[in-house]
Amino acid sequence: MKQEEGSGTQKTTGSTGTSKLDEATRKKLQAHLATVENHLHHGIIPFWFARALDTEFGGYMTNFDERGEPLPVPEKYVNTQCRLIWWFSTLHRRFPEMPKAAEMARQGVEFLIKHFWDEQYGGFYWKVKRDGRELDSAKIVYGESYCIYALSEYYRATGDKIGLEYAGRTFDLLQKYCADTEWGGYLENVNRDWSAEAGGFAGGDRKGLDTHMHLMESFTTLYAASGEEIHGRKLQQVVDLIREKMIDKATGCGLNQFDLAFHSLPAISIKRTWNGERLGEQPADPVDTTSYGHNVELEYLMHQAMTAVGNGDASYLPIYRRLLDHAVENGVDWEYGGIYRDGLRATGKAIVFEKEFWQHSEALAAFLDGYEQFREPRYLDAFGKVWGFVREQMIIKEVGEWRTLLDRYGKAIDAKIGNPWKVAYHTGRSMLECREHLLRLLD
Amino acid sequence: MKQEEGSGTQKTTGSTGTSKLDEATRKKLQAHLATVENHLHHGIIPFWFARALDTEFGGYMTNFDERGEPLPVPEKYVNTQCRLIWWFSTLHRRFPEMPKAAEMARQGVEFLIKHFWDEQYGGFYWKVKRDGRELDSAKIVYGESYCIYALSEYYRATGDKIGLEYAGRTFDLLQKYCADTEWGGYLENVNRDWSAEAGGFAGGDRKGLDTHMHLMESFTTLYAASGEEIHGRKLQQVVDLIREKMIDKATGCGLNQFDLAFHSLPAISIKRTWNGERLGEQPADPVDTTSYGHNVELEYLMHQAMTAVGNGDASYLPIYRRLLDHAVENGVDWEYGGIYRDGLRATGKAIVFEKEFWQHSEALAAFLDGYEQFREPRYLDAFGKVWGFVREQMIIKEVGEWRTLLDRYGKAIDAKIGNPWKVAYHTGRSMLECREHLLRLLD
Repeated sequence: MKQEEGSGTQKTTGSTGTSKLDEATRKKLQAHLATVENHLHHGIIPFWFARALDTEFGGYMTNFDERGEPLPVPEKYVNTQCRLIWWFSTLHRRFPEMPKAAEMARQGVEFLIKHFWDEQYGGFYWKVKRDGRELDSAKIVYGESYCIYALSEYYRATGDKIGLEYAGRTFDLLQKYCADTEWGGYLENVNRDWSAEAGGFAGGDRKGLDTHMHLMESFTTLYAASGEEIHGRKLQQVVDLIREKMIDKATGCGLNQFDLAFHSLPAISIKRTWNGERLGEQPADPVDTTSYGHNVELEYLMHQAMTAVGNGDASYLPIYRRLLDHAVENGVDWEYGGIYRDGLRATGKAIVFEKEFWQHSEALAAFLDGYEQFREPRYLDAFGKVWGFVREQMIIKEVGEWRTLLDRYGKAIDAKIGNPWKVAYHTGRSMLECREHLLRLLD
Repeated sequence: MKQEEGSGTQKTTGSTGTSKLDEATRKKLQAHLATVENHLHHGIIPFWFARALDTEFGGYMTNFDERGEPLPVPEKYVNTQCRLIWWFSTLHRRFPEMPKAAEMARQGVEFLIKHFWDEQYGGFYWKVKRDGRELDSAKIVYGESYCIYALSEYYRATGDKIGLEYAGRTFDLLQKYCADTEWGGYLENVNRDWSAEAGGFAGGDRKGLDTHMHLMESFTTLYAASGEEIHGRKLQQVVDLIREKMIDKATGCGLNQFDLAFHSLPAISIKRTWNGERLGEQPADPVDTTSYGHNVELEYLMHQAMTAVGNGDASYLPIYRRLLDHAVENGVDWEYGGIYRDGLRATGKAIVFEKEFWQHSEALAAFLDGYEQFREPRYLDAFGKVWGFVREQMIIKEVGEWRTLLDRYGKAIDAKIGNPWKVAYHTGRSMLECREHLLRLLD
């Protein structure tokens, strides 16, 4: 594990860094900003503007091959439709002068409410056919959370009250039907009528870090949109829940799955997840693995949540540091660039060396978040190593978006750009976050 | 601690008893049924029919001296107004031929919704002046729970949908604003806008068995009224929460107060409680005490909750037994009759020998509940010892209701019949419960 030359590897234990940049670092950051802005404005943004609209039925197209050509969309998942509502909304909020983004978001909201909203029981269905007809009416909290995220961001961007109204209603339904008043946290998999799903593969008897992390993400945006005390309060509760019960005290890594009482369990595949839908039911994972990319995503989403509620409690800083350090020390491929998929929790050792798009997206945003907070040079080095790999291997330059999955050395395993879960949320958000970190650092 | 002669003191470890009664026991139960029915129909029921209606403003009068003469009612507490709505509703449900009960309940509901319901934030205020004007608009979960209890029972009794509507709305508000998604359970003391009250005397940083036990009670009735899955589910969660976190594993007694993470704390007086409102802020109780009457009330309310959700899990039976046994062994005054107020949790030893009305009410219902389940003779003996004391010392025969507080030997310390918190809920419910246990045992 070699690190880039010229950078220290010492840990600083400090709080938010504000020291002046030296000239070499400033130049490096300026170069990163240029490549990020270029990829954003000449890659991701035009890619999705040109292709996302489903001109036949409304809502969004999600599936594209490596040339950016559309593939059939037999299913529309609520989370992916929402990821694109979020994307166009956040573009409009961040670049108000950009034409079309608000309208691209608005028509997605219209499709979402028309076809996914359950008039009888409330909440959004899990998936529909391309034309909006029913396909799976279960209520999956992971999906409901993306509805809150997208609709809140849509309201922030456009002021259209329908966004905040449905985000708030969904939040209320989660409090009523999914909040677990015995153990805390939320039930994650429920039926259309909000009764608990079966246990095992259907996940009715499990809680997980993934869903709770995304609730933290969506409540952050909801609270920013509404300013309501209760939205901030439940946000703080989910932050503290994750801190107390879902992060391994020994290693500082995120744990994965739990029983309802938050006893850590070996991970199983769960029906309505990206892996579960592709691969079906699988035997429980016999080893305790951790996802470097998920850990650093947790770091910066938790930092954003704490910022949103105005909580400056310094005891969170070591938690952020450990999440980042674990990935920097074990997950970053210092030789070939990029970040490995999975490692062993106990030792940190990587065991799955593939390079997947979303971990790279999240690592870029997280390493700059860490660098901005702590001014730790190796976080910036790690950013460089990941960004280099992404630019050279992952991005398909001709079309401006990212392949899904590569081997360690950059050879494509899955070269598709868009799949039923991918779209612009990870890649696009990463570039937006990186841009803003770099602008602040250079300010 | 002498027990009544002729009864065994051995513990049976069995489940629900169904053995035939011997003739001596049958005669004893018949005699108890006669005294209970006599007190109910010639004491408590006519007492409150004659006096409860506030003919000037609507709602209920609550305060009466020992001759049953009305005392001024400067304040109407939401819990006490609801206790009388519950009382008249349950009378109507159990004795449909009884005139007036439904109308007595209906006008109470009208007063409650007109003067206590908060049109802006939802939920019911803590107290109003006699004529309904605002006095304390905080939302106290103990009080909200009585609203759910009363309005659900009113709906069960009369079919008037306004009862279930407001009970359900209050339930939903508790899920949204009070359910603690980090630690489980409910915040108990919040401001009018449902933000958390201050810590300390205002109780915003405490959870307690009392409020959670009453939520279990009200959710039991709500679930019986609505049959909605979510009402049953949250009921089971509060039952299990109490079992796991609020009952002392060492002694089987209920614990009292907790921080938000359910660490047991020395009890302090809390502002909007019966003791807090009378006595003001007090130093924290330096010793760990337990209330025998509260423990046995917990036993039978938990048993009723489990019956309501149809949960026959036999692992709850030893929990019921320990709650009952602790009171039988330490709390019953086998010499003078009745049940002591408080004891030490660790040893069980009584330290407050006063005899208070509500512990006697709850002990009567609980000991017959225990006897009906387990056919343990000493539970019936304990019932006899408490009922003898109540009949001879506590009930004011001329007017047919109970004094508030006596010394160990029966001398009145507080001879009043009705106070701002007392009314017919403990005494009347006890007699209704005892009557039904005795009828089933004799069937």
